[in-house]
Amino acid sequence: MSAPRSTRFAPTREQFAALDAADRLAPLRQLFELPAEVIYLDGNSLGALPKATADRVQRTVRDEWGRGLITSWNHAGWIDLPRKLGDKIARLVGAASGELVVADSTSINLFKVLWAALAPQRAATPARRVIVSERSNFPTDLYIAQSLAATHDCELRLVHADQLTAALDDSVAVLMLTHVNYRTGQMHDMAALTAAAHGAGALTVWDLAHSAGAVPVDLNGAQADFAIGCGYKYLNGGPGAPAFVWVHARHAARFEQPLTGWMGHASPFEFGPDYRAASGITRALCGTPPVLSMAALDCGLDTLLAAEPYGGLRALRDKSVALTRGFAELVDARCAGHGFVVVSPRVDAQRGSQVCLSRDEGAYAIVQALIARGVIGDYRAGGLGLPDILRFGFTPLTLRFVDVWDAVEHLRQVMDLGEWRQPRFNQRQAVT
Amino acid sequence: MSAPRSTRFAPTREQFAALDAADRLAPLRQLFELPAEVIYLDGNSLGALPKATADRVQRTVRDEWGRGLITSWNHAGWIDLPRKLGDKIARLVGAASGELVVADSTSINLFKVLWAALAPQRAATPARRVIVSERSNFPTDLYIAQSLAATHDCELRLVHADQLTAALDDSVAVLMLTHVNYRTGQMHDMAALTAAAHGAGALTVWDLAHSAGAVPVDLNGAQADFAIGCGYKYLNGGPGAPAFVWVHARHAARFEQPLTGWMGHASPFEFGPDYRAASGITRALCGTPPVLSMAALDCGLDTLLAAEPYGGLRALRDKSVALTRGFAELVDARCAGHGFVVVSPRVDAQRGSQVCLSRDEGAYAIVQALIARGVIGDYRAGGLGLPDILRFGFTPLTLRFVDVWDAVEHLRQVMDLGEWRQPRFNQRQAVT
Repeated sequence: MSAPRSTRFAPTREQFAALDAADRLAPLRQLFELPAEVIYLDGNSLGALPKATADRVQRTVRDEWGRGLITSWNHAGWIDLPRKLGDKIARLVGAASGELVVADSTSINLFKVLWAALAPQRAATPARRVIVSERSNFPTDLYIAQSLAATHDCELRLVHADQLTAALDDSVAVLMLTHVNYRTGQMHDMAALTAAAHGAGALTVWDLAHSAGAVPVDLNGAQADFAIGCGYKYLNGGPGAPAFVWVHARHAARFEQPLTGWMGHASPFEFGPDYRAASGITRALCGTPPVLSMAALDCGLDTLLAAEPYGGLRALRDKSVALTRGFAELVDARCAGHGFVVVSPRVDAQRGSQVCLSRDEGAYAIVQALIARGVIGDYRAGGLGLPDILRFGFTPLTLRFVDVWDAVEHLRQVMDLGEWRQPRFNQRQAVT
Repeated sequence: MSAPRSTRFAPTREQFAALDAADRLAPLRQLFELPAEVIYLDGNSLGALPKATADRVQRTVRDEWGRGLITSWNHAGWIDLPRKLGDKIARLVGAASGELVVADSTSINLFKVLWAALAPQRAATPARRVIVSERSNFPTDLYIAQSLAATHDCELRLVHADQLTAALDDSVAVLMLTHVNYRTGQMHDMAALTAAAHGAGALTVWDLAHSAGAVPVDLNGAQADFAIGCGYKYLNGGPGAPAFVWVHARHAARFEQPLTGWMGHASPFEFGPDYRAASGITRALCGTPPVLSMAALDCGLDTLLAAEPYGGLRALRDKSVALTRGFAELVDARCAGHGFVVVSPRVDAQRGSQVCLSRDEGAYAIVQALIARGVIGDYRAGGLGLPDILRFGFTPLTLRFVDVWDAVEHLRQVMDLGEWRQPRFNQRQAVT
């Protein structure tokens, strides 16, 4: 598969349709329920609904819960879901079976692993009292880091992406990063930054929210220390799907985290009075998982594993690169003069599966006008030196090349017709 | 409604059927899907499936997620679910609207509120360094308390239920209790113990896992400080349903908890870089909630609110007392000589909605033999001076008085026929 060329680019919809005709991954789109009138460029906020999910959740409700009642913890395998789903995710992020579990939310899992990384560093080397992160990291990650900086008498040092390596001195306990930036789509070199952190004596915590299922990740290859990620974006697990947590094998037998619930106990069914952490990643579990949401996540993971016969994440990544490059180049070519700046990296290897645009004014209204036309992207407010952005996520499992063409055509029309200036598109309401 | 008398008790099944005929709450049983062949006495582990739930979850999956996609956070009201469901639970536990939210798991919510209670106590009065709890409290609660005792340089002091008041001296920071004991069904006097704790300068944290939806609770009337509880027991929210958390209004504007995710932020959609806690109980929220499981919990709560025209929790409690008293007295009368001891309090006001039995041997096998007959209770292992128990929960929304009769009749037969001695009932496997 090849993307349209960027030199002398006079593209046509037929060229994009030809890319679809040649797309070996095209049949995977049939795994999803997609509203006919929608071009969905927000799978990085909430992945689309897999066709298998509704029946699976219905079975879990009616048969497993309704008929099996309490016995389904064993007979329907509910008790194994955190590890079973974890093993599926492990295949997508370069982790081994038994190294990763599904549990709780992304924020709570970040709390666990950031604690697990900080505590031994603070104990061993009191002078190491800095958490380094990126200034434009996802805010909720920064909130959790602020909380743990306070509880561990640390300092959260935020720097620009290009200053990260320089910030790694011997005061640093932990480097905490989101692998693909939620605003810009910029992707860090996990192996290089992990090596730099280790060279400085720091541990690494990676948030894979915008990576897992979207770009190849090799946690073990990168020698990363801790990682967490989200179930409801590219993993298609449904709204608020549980999150995941991974710890490198070298830490797994001795890391400690303070959310010590019964499912992380070495013998959870003994109901003994004293906490003894289970071996390995199981100790990252806390309370009882939301089974209906776990069942849906299981179906979402199966949509990604269904790509394995087609080349798996490597093939998905190739298509994703072609989709995002095609989108950026079409915006250049067909929306020229409308003031858009492509904020995401132009270099493929530095770009996740999204393209963000900025514009001097109107980002919010333009997104609303696109949504009214059935092109669903999202808006992220700027501030503190960052511009307002229009964010478009590209899920290679569900998107066609003609969707990219049509989305840019809608954008062009919204601008050519001045549609975005209509008052109804400028009334702000909360958006997620 | 009156229960069978305990003097000269020669009961018949017809007497129990007559109680059903006179039971004003009987129609509420129609709100549930109940397998015909099962007598379900484990609603205190996992509540039964409400009839409305399957369709509601299906709508949430197919329409809200599948068609509405990301827009359903606003259009389908997902973003409001933590508060909307919280307001419903508030009506069941003596809290006001806006004081309670649904979030995360019971264990994680306990971590939040125990931290919120401990931190200011430790800061204001360093000599207060003791968490008092009950030795036979639910283990996961003790595990969380052990963790926070370590992080806050505190001591967890475990005493027997009758020593709680005596343990409240000026070294105590927090009294942490489960209102109804998971093993024995013994119910604490929340108002009296809260007053005693306050008199000693301590704060209170109440776990309502076996209370909410089962017995009347009056958090504000008792002047309690913090409370948490479970969504999947008497609230019928489904396996692993999200839990709830409440803070008294006098603490709500200033309590702090360290799981500072985006949903607890004062302006969550600004995505600003610094955490500012929302006002009130909203600051107890952390990450994105599992929406499918939240939708199911909403239906579970509606089954309890449907009892309001019939007298609500007061009427449910009256029936529950009659069911549990009837069960205990039938065991006395019809299983005499089989060595059962009723472990739960005989005094109605001290008993939650369950009856536990102990026996010198065979508790596990007897529970298995009952399950094979369709009578689902559960087994809790003993140890550390506590006996193995057979535990039976009585959900007044779903249970008939004849179910109580029939359950005891099955128990009698299991014992009379020696059925429990069969090897197949003595092979242990993990049970929840």
